[in-house]
Amino acid sequence: MADQHYPIYAAIDLGSNSFHMLIVRSVEGSVQTIGKIKRKVRLAAGLQDNGELDQAAMARGWDCLSLFAERLQDIPAKNVRIVGTAALRLAQNADVFLDKAEQILNHRIDVISGEEEARLIYVGVAHTSGTSVTKLVIDIGGASTEMVCGERFTPVVVNSLNMGCVTYKKRFFENDQITLRNFEMAISAAQAQMSGKLQPYMAFGWQACLGASGTPQAIQEVLIAQGDNEMITLDKLLKLRDTCIDCGHIDKLEIVGLAHERRPVFVSGLAILIAIFQALNISYMVVAGGALREGIIYGMIPCLQQQDIRQRTLTSFIQRYRLDKEQAFRVRDIALSLFDQLHVHWALEQHDSRAILEAASVLHEVGLTVDFKFAARHAAYILSNTAIPGFSLAQRKLLIAIVKNYREDIDMEEVNSQTMTSPILAGQLTRLLRLAVLLTMRRKDEVLPKVKLCSTGLNDLNLTFEANWLTAHPLMDSELQQEQEYHQKVGWHFTFS
Amino acid sequence: MADQHYPIYAAIDLGSNSFHMLIVRSVEGSVQTIGKIKRKVRLAAGLQDNGELDQAAMARGWDCLSLFAERLQDIPAKNVRIVGTAALRLAQNADVFLDKAEQILNHRIDVISGEEEARLIYVGVAHTSGTSVTKLVIDIGGASTEMVCGERFTPVVVNSLNMGCVTYKKRFFENDQITLRNFEMAISAAQAQMSGKLQPYMAFGWQACLGASGTPQAIQEVLIAQGDNEMITLDKLLKLRDTCIDCGHIDKLEIVGLAHERRPVFVSGLAILIAIFQALNISYMVVAGGALREGIIYGMIPCLQQQDIRQRTLTSFIQRYRLDKEQAFRVRDIALSLFDQLHVHWALEQHDSRAILEAASVLHEVGLTVDFKFAARHAAYILSNTAIPGFSLAQRKLLIAIVKNYREDIDMEEVNSQTMTSPILAGQLTRLLRLAVLLTMRRKDEVLPKVKLCSTGLNDLNLTFEANWLTAHPLMDSELQQEQEYHQKVGWHFTFS
Repeated sequence: MADQHYPIYAAIDLGSNSFHMLIVRSVEGSVQTIGKIKRKVRLAAGLQDNGELDQAAMARGWDCLSLFAERLQDIPAKNVRIVGTAALRLAQNADVFLDKAEQILNHRIDVISGEEEARLIYVGVAHTSGTSVTKLVIDIGGASTEMVCGERFTPVVVNSLNMGCVTYKKRFFENDQITLRNFEMAISAAQAQMSGKLQPYMAFGWQACLGASGTPQAIQEVLIAQGDNEMITLDKLLKLRDTCIDCGHIDKLEIVGLAHERRPVFVSGLAILIAIFQALNISYMVVAGGALREGIIYGMIPCLQQQDIRQRTLTSFIQRYRLDKEQAFRVRDIALSLFDQLHVHWALEQHDSRAILEAASVLHEVGLTVDFKFAARHAAYILSNTAIPGFSLAQRKLLIAIVKNYREDIDMEEVNSQTMTSPILAGQLTRLLRLAVLLTMRRKDEVLPKVKLCSTGLNDLNLTFEANWLTAHPLMDSELQQEQEYHQKVGWHFTFS
Repeated sequence: MADQHYPIYAAIDLGSNSFHMLIVRSVEGSVQTIGKIKRKVRLAAGLQDNGELDQAAMARGWDCLSLFAERLQDIPAKNVRIVGTAALRLAQNADVFLDKAEQILNHRIDVISGEEEARLIYVGVAHTSGTSVTKLVIDIGGASTEMVCGERFTPVVVNSLNMGCVTYKKRFFENDQITLRNFEMAISAAQAQMSGKLQPYMAFGWQACLGASGTPQAIQEVLIAQGDNEMITLDKLLKLRDTCIDCGHIDKLEIVGLAHERRPVFVSGLAILIAIFQALNISYMVVAGGALREGIIYGMIPCLQQQDIRQRTLTSFIQRYRLDKEQAFRVRDIALSLFDQLHVHWALEQHDSRAILEAASVLHEVGLTVDFKFAARHAAYILSNTAIPGFSLAQRKLLIAIVKNYREDIDMEEVNSQTMTSPILAGQLTRLLRLAVLLTMRRKDEVLPKVKLCSTGLNDLNLTFEANWLTAHPLMDSELQQEQEYHQKVGWHFTFS
C-alpha cells in the first residue's frame, strides 16, 4: 500500500486562564492528537479596574505565544485557527496585546464573540460526545460561561454569560474562605446573570446535558475517585458544596480526587454549576469529550462534518485498526437479529442498548491488532484509552464490558461494574455478542446457520438450529458445548439443539 | 481510502501429541492470527508395539479433523498446508489414517520427513525470532527432536532425532517416578541418539540458540514465574532437575509457573534438553516466537520471504499503526547520530544496542493510535503484547523500557527491570531517544538544530547548540528546561547551552 500522508491542523485558544495549542493529524476519519502545549498565562488576572490588561499579563501572554510560534510556522496557515475569548473581549486595550501577538504568531487572531465561542463549543461537543439528537451544553470558563441548546451539529439557543470560575473566585471567594454565605452570594449572582434567558432552553428541551471544560471535569474526577458513578446531579453538587464548606479554606480543600492546582477555582465553578442546575432544572450532566479547541479543529476538517458521529466512529475504527469489515458487519447483523428476537421478552430496548450492542459487534476484533492471545483484553484496553466519539463515558463502559467478554472466560466483575445499566441487561447483551461471534466464526455469509433464539426467563437462553444442522457441523457443536461451560461458570443457563 | 482485503491462510500440523490449526490474515507485511484450534489427540500414545496406530487413536484424530474441516473449507485451497509429523512417519498403518483424513479434510496431507520438519521449524523461527545471522534452533516435540543450524533464512545443518517428550516419558518415566537414575538414563539415551551428529554443528557455530515448542516454553515460564530472567542455561536446567527429583512423582510436580497439563511430559523434555545443552556446549538458549506452523505459513506468503526481519517489522508497524513515517525516520536518524557521538565515550556499542535504539526511535509513537494522553504508556502496552519479529524477549523489554520513557516522567523501574543490559546503558539509550524526540519536535528536516552531544562521565550529558540558536527558539529552550527537570528527578545530570 502507498504511504499515507495525513494533514496536520492546529487550534490555539487564548483563554482567560490558560493559553492552549492543540496539534492534530486527521487520520482515516478520526482526529489524532500529536501535540499539546499549555501555559497558565492568567490573562484575566491582569484585568485592572480601568478595564485594561496590565503589562505583566500581556508580557506573560506574548512570552507564551513566542513558544507557540515556533511550532506554528511548520503548519500550513490554512490549517490553523487562533481565537481569543472573554479576557480579550473585555480588555479595553486588547488591540495593544493583539497587534504584537499577531506579529509574534505571524497569523491572524480572531477575538470571537461569546455567541461564536458558544457555537464552537457546541460543535466541539457534538463531534466528540454527540450521544443524542438534542443536547444542552454547558461550558464554565475562566471569565465566561456558555450555555447552548442544539440539535445534532447545529446550535440553536446560544448564550455566553459574563461569569466564570476565575472572575467568581475574585468576586466571592477573594479571601479564600469557603462559607455557606459566600456560596449563596455566588449562586445568587449567577442566577441573576441567567435571569430572563432561561425560557428558550426550557422550550427547546434536551435529551442529554453535557458539561465541558475544567469545572465539570474536576467534579467528575472527584465523584469517580470517591467510588461514585460519573453522573453529575444536583444532590451530589450540594453534598460537594457542604464538603467544601467543611474544609473552610481553599488551602485546606483536601478532597479525594481533586487536583491541587484546581483548588483555587473549584468552589467558584461549583457555585456556578449549582446555579445552572437549579435554574434549568437539570436532572443529570455528563462530561463532554471536547469543547472549544475541538470545535475549531472540526470546523477546519470538511470531511468530518455533518455525518452521524457513531457511524463515523465505527467506520474510522474499521479503517484505523484494519478490522475485517465484512466480518464486523456480519457479527453486527447477527447480533442485532438475536437482539430483535429477544428484545420484548428481555426488555432489551433501553438506554440505547441496541446501538451499544451494534458498536460492540463492529469493534470486538480491535484487539487482534495487538495479538490473538488475550484479544478481548487488548480490545478493552484500547477502547478504555481512546476517544470513542458518540458514546458517553457510561455507554463506553458498557461497550467495553461487552467487548471484553466476547469470547472465552466471562469476567463478571466487568459486567457488574459498568454503570450504564443493570448487570442483568449488560450480561444479556454480552451473551448476544458471544453467540453472534460463534455463529459467524467461519466468516462467510453462505454458511451462516439459521437459528431461533428464545428464553423462558431472564437468565435462560435456548438456541435452536434447523434439523440435522448441528450433526453436520461438529465444530460448531463442539464450540457451543464449550460456550455452555463458559456460561455455567458464571451461573448462566444456556441450551442448544 | 479503499477497503483493504487481506488474504487468509491456514496451517495444520498433525503432531504426535496435539493437532493444531492456525488461521492468519496477512496484513501489511505482518501475520495476524485470527483463529487457533487445538485438540490433544495424543496420536503417538496409540502407537502399538507392532508399529501400528490403534483404532482409538485414529478415531480421535478423525474426530478432530472433522472439526478442522468445517473451518478449512472457507479458505482457498492454495492458502492451506497440512503436514503430519513423527507419529505419522513412524506408524506402519499411516495410510489407513491418512486416506480417511484426506477425505474428511478434502485436502492433501503431507507427511513430511524429519529433515523437512526441521527446515520448516527453522524458517518459522527465523521469521519470528531472527535476531542473529547464524543460529541454532532446537525443537523438542512429542516423538522427535529437531536440531538445526542455519544462516538467516537458510537451514544448513539439519537433523531430526527419534526422541521426544512423549516417547521419553513412556520409556524412562513410565511409572511416574522422578529419580536421578531415571533422569540419567533418559539423558544417556538422548546423548546416544546425538552421537556422531554433533561435529557439523560445532563446526558451523551459532550466534544465538533458540528453543521452540512446549519444553523450552514451559521452562521459561517457570524461570520467569520464579523471578529469574528468561535465559535458559545448563545450571538452571540442572537445578530444575533437582527440584523435580525432590518432588519425586509426576503427580506431585508442584513447581511455581508450571502448568498442570504440562506435568506429564515436563521431566522427559527437561532430560532431553539437558542432554542437548551438554552435547553442544550451549551457553544459553532463549525461546523462539514460532516454529513449525509459522514456518508453514511464512512459506506460503511470498512477499514476506527473504527480507531483513527487523526492517520488515518496523515497516509493518509504520503501516499498521499509521505512524508518521517521516517523523519516525527523522527521530531515528537524530537518535543514531547522537548515539554515534557518544558511543565510544559511553561504550554504547554492545548487545545490539544501536539496533534497539533504532527500533525504539521508529516505534515510539505507536501509542498515539490509542491516545496522545499517556501515549508512551500505550506504546509500552502494545509492544508488550504484540509480536515483534526480529527481537528476543530481552531485547523487546529493553525496547519497551526506552519507548515507555520517550517523554515526560521517567520510570526508572522500567529501565532497571529490563534484563538485556545494565540499567546504566538502558538509561543512556533512553536519554538519547528523549533528546532526539525533543530536537525533532517540529517534524521538519529544515528546522533541525545542529547540536553537539558530549559527556564527561556515565551520568553526565551536555548538549550544545550553535551560537544564538536557542535565543531564537524559546520553545525549544523551554522544553529543554523541562527536560532538565525530568532528568534531575531521577538523578541524571543534563546541561545545554
